[in-house]
Amino acid sequence: MKLYDNSHAPNPRRVRMVLAEKGITDYEKINLDLGAGDNLHPDFLAKNPAGKIPVLELDDGLCLSETGAICRYLDETFSETSLYGATPKQRALIDMWDRRAEFNLVFNAALGFQHTSGFFKDRMTPFPEWGLQSITNYRNSLTLFEQQLQNNEWIAGPEFSIADITAVCAIDFSKVIKVRLDDSTPNLQRWYAAVRARDSYKA
Amino acid sequence: MKLYDNSHAPNPRRVRMVLAEKGITDYEKINLDLGAGDNLHPDFLAKNPAGKIPVLELDDGLCLSETGAICRYLDETFSETSLYGATPKQRALIDMWDRRAEFNLVFNAALGFQHTSGFFKDRMTPFPEWGLQSITNYRNSLTLFEQQLQNNEWIAGPEFSIADITAVCAIDFSKVIKVRLDDSTPNLQRWYAAVRARDSYKA
Repeated sequence: MKLYDNSHAPNPRRVRMVLAEKGITDYEKINLDLGAGDNLHPDFLAKNPAGKIPVLELDDGLCLSETGAICRYLDETFSETSLYGATPKQRALIDMWDRRAEFNLVFNAALGFQHTSGFFKDRMTPFPEWGLQSITNYRNSLTLFEQQLQNNEWIAGPEFSIADITAVCAIDFSKVIKVRLDDSTPNLQRWYAAVRARDSYKA
Repeated sequence: MKLYDNSHAPNPRRVRMVLAEKGITDYEKINLDLGAGDNLHPDFLAKNPAGKIPVLELDDGLCLSETGAICRYLDETFSETSLYGATPKQRALIDMWDRRAEFNLVFNAALGFQHTSGFFKDRMTPFPEWGLQSITNYRNSLTLFEQQLQNNEWIAGPEFSIADITAVCAIDFSKVIKVRLDDSTPNLQRWYAAVRARDSYKA
């Protein structure tokens, strides 16, 4: 397998953490320079017409994109321990929290970065006020996770899951919008220390 | 089961179409008036702290939110025909296209509506220029689906799937941003006629 990757972006890291949690090391990482527009090159657009990373290219040439789809494919295909839960109800709660982490944390952090930094202004129109609002939305949504972690060891319940991976990748990325966890969210801090202690965190 | 619903919103309709495709009729629909803020009432926030519909309340009281998680739960739990594919690769491709439909069509149409109509201006700050850009992004992303449907009967391949449900709910909702399918996308028009012919379309 080949992973079309970028070491700064939050979404490829979600895939790398899933690979690490599953113990999968037999894959090739191909780093794309997003600032230089490697992801807009025709060779890459043939793999993902949306021009987005990550892309996972399987050994038969099939190219999968969309982070959530790649992570779930890897989870279904490799090893017996699942990051997505065992029973339909557990799976639904993990999926629900994974989506909450994606929509509230990953998306708002990405919108905040894209619309305030001007990093991609050669290929999109930034609306700085919308970027600032997205950063506010990101900050406000941390409360939802703080409340959940008051009564749960991990974001979706008693087991580490894909929702923890999605959340931590957003929270680490949020340094680019200058938001860090602080003492106002002690349960998130406790959870963050526990995620950092896992080998997969370094992925 | 109880579905907390709204007849105008695209996301609850995705759930109603899944229920219809699975032949599930034994559930109660509870319509929420979003303009009046029914979804911000403490009784509803106890079911979903994000204040969003749809919510599926199971008979044991467990409340599931996030449309994608609800649809997948229903698919896993009821009947043998899956809207999510049979093999890991089929499932990955359907998930990929479902996410493309959600991020490019549902989200852009919703952002376009929310930021240009002022419908929710009592509870959010609309940025009209960002709304117009989101409508442009919606229009541009139709090309991705038109291209896919040149060589595929349904959006994710040879079988009707959850990706078709997600896409048609966005496309019908897009009347509120004044975008309709036209002769510039003949394959989308052919596909749309085929989706309309299914019983579940009326859900």
